Amino acid sequence: MPELRKDPVSGRWVIISVERGKRPTDFVSPSQKRKAGGFCPFCPGNEHTAPPEIIAFRPASTPPNTPGWTLRVVPNKFPALQIQGDLNKMGEGIFDKMNGVGAHEVIIETPEHEQSLATMPLRAVEDVFWAYYFRLNDLKKDPRLKYVLVFKNEGEVAGSSLEHSHSQLIALPIVPNTVREEMDNARKYYDAKERCLFCDIVNQELGSGKRLVYENERYVVIAPFAPREPFETWILPKKHESAFVPPDKSFGSLAEILQRTLRQLDKVLDTPPYNFILHTSPFKDEINDFYHWHLEIVPKLTRTAGFEWGSGFYINPTAPEEAAKFMRDAKI
Amino acid sequence: MPELRKDPVSGRWVIISVERGKRPTDFVSPSQKRKAGGFCPFCPGNEHTAPPEIIAFRPASTPPNTPGWTLRVVPNKFPALQIQGDLNKMGEGIFDKMNGVGAHEVIIETPEHEQSLATMPLRAVEDVFWAYYFRLNDLKKDPRLKYVLVFKNEGEVAGSSLEHSHSQLIALPIVPNTVREEMDNARKYYDAKERCLFCDIVNQELGSGKRLVYENERYVVIAPFAPREPFETWILPKKHESAFVPPDKSFGSLAEILQRTLRQLDKVLDTPPYNFILHTSPFKDEINDFYHWHLEIVPKLTRTAGFEWGSGFYINPTAPEEAAKFMRDAKI
Repeated sequence: MPELRKDPVSGRWVIISVERGKRPTDFVSPSQKRKAGGFCPFCPGNEHTAPPEIIAFRPASTPPNTPGWTLRVVPNKFPALQIQGDLNKMGEGIFDKMNGVGAHEVIIETPEHEQSLATMPLRAVEDVFWAYYFRLNDLKKDPRLKYVLVFKNEGEVAGSSLEHSHSQLIALPIVPNTVREEMDNARKYYDAKERCLFCDIVNQELGSGKRLVYENERYVVIAPFAPREPFETWILPKKHESAFVPPDKSFGSLAEILQRTLRQLDKVLDTPPYNFILHTSPFKDEINDFYHWHLEIVPKLTRTAGFEWGSGFYINPTAPEEAAKFMRDAKI
Repeated sequence: MPELRKDPVSGRWVIISVERGKRPTDFVSPSQKRKAGGFCPFCPGNEHTAPPEIIAFRPASTPPNTPGWTLRVVPNKFPALQIQGDLNKMGEGIFDKMNGVGAHEVIIETPEHEQSLATMPLRAVEDVFWAYYFRLNDLKKDPRLKYVLVFKNEGEVAGSSLEHSHSQLIALPIVPNTVREEMDNARKYYDAKERCLFCDIVNQELGSGKRLVYENERYVVIAPFAPREPFETWILPKKHESAFVPPDKSFGSLAEILQRTLRQLDKVLDTPPYNFILHTSPFKDEINDFYHWHLEIVPKLTRTAGFEWGSGFYINPTAPEEAAKFMRDAKI
């Protein structure tokens, strides 16, 4: 019998088709292993083809926008939003609109074209999180901006147009729907129980172990109870943290667990395309007792997203208990 | 300057990148024109390869599950939900689940493999709506079921695994998130204004004409103010109707406007893959003053859905005013 499950965070129901029980080899998805060759605007030596860098990790001896860096953040050449201008909120009859003020930046994670977050040195992964953190803290100072969405599209079918490993951020003058709904659900849960919903999830998953993929000192990796897609995977801090911050000034533990998780996914699903999205509290309510930041990793294995995002209704052919087991058993 | 717009129905904000202003020819999407050849389980003569028909439109002289039909409804051979069994609602610690009780049916819209809703005789399109209506009314009698989601995946990238023109329905023991949110927003609007949100949208769009594609006696086609995807298109009844019903016992006017709209999309976008989803009131609150049924048609032209459905945040490179103009100008 298939099962209907509710994700308490988003409030959405999904169907888990336990019978169909798709195994990793049932998914046909293009492998995202890097191919060298061809012009790449993110490779060292081509810095002039992107807008000037916002920050870079590079030796003091190297000038900006030249080779020598290990990580760069640059404005998106084709930004979805513009940093200049007033919000100018307006109505149009019954509709609401405002100017597309915001920022759209690209985090170039490594100078090496053939590396990915799964293969680069751990220290480089740590630096990626530092880059997110620095940019979040800088953009927070702009009173027009309410939220920064940090995300990664890995592979063409996941929406990436360039192969060279990078993530993106979009700073917004509004809080996106998904985050707002999660905040609302988490707030209701806290009002009822005086406990953080995510802390309760973490504790239950650590206790049962059924959907647990891995834990280290500070973080836990789980297959969520009601995943939208096969092998959807969440990373959460074990202790309550409402906003994305480096505990004890280090992202080492987070880098370790992210890289390990991506290596497991690469092993089990043959280097799949994926999206990851950082969900953290909005700027104006950053320190709170009810929301808990986390990273959602969603491999792009199925083709049904069109209908599913239109209906808010998901059919998932792989139970998270199965997915977690495949990942735990992966020899990495 | 890009524009941020809020869809009052779903509450979601989208970015309209007016500058990038993508035109129809900028989208590369596989054309969905039918190719004959190969085995098709939905073609006449192959009735035995599908589960026995639930209803069919066929001459009285032809026995069930044999050729002669013009439309058939059959259970999905690989159903996401099962019709037998109890709901058996249960908790698992803090999580909620229930048995996957429901129905998953396929509406085979025509016996002719090479036809689509855009090309088949108008009478056949009318029959498709009658099939939806009959199935909705039958499934409504089952007290375990709360909602029927009627949808169509046209083309492989839109999630369809078979080329032969068909739509699907999934009957559910819960109301899906998207519909619940729309109901909530529409109820709040009604509480504030004593008017239906959708009636106000229809009136504003008919008045301004900017996003109007077409209207006939009973229905209107618009490009919505804050579309998620380029060329997203909605069909709504002009007069308030909370649930999907044939006004004056005819779907003729609806068939005419749907076929016309699909022909315009086929013309402008070279027979694109698309999804459509029927949004109607849930069974238990079918007749109400605040919700207004409608059909959402979403061509599948971009590849960014992975990130976008994960964040609830959409970047649309084509303004709906432009899309509506292209559609109005299409010579069909």
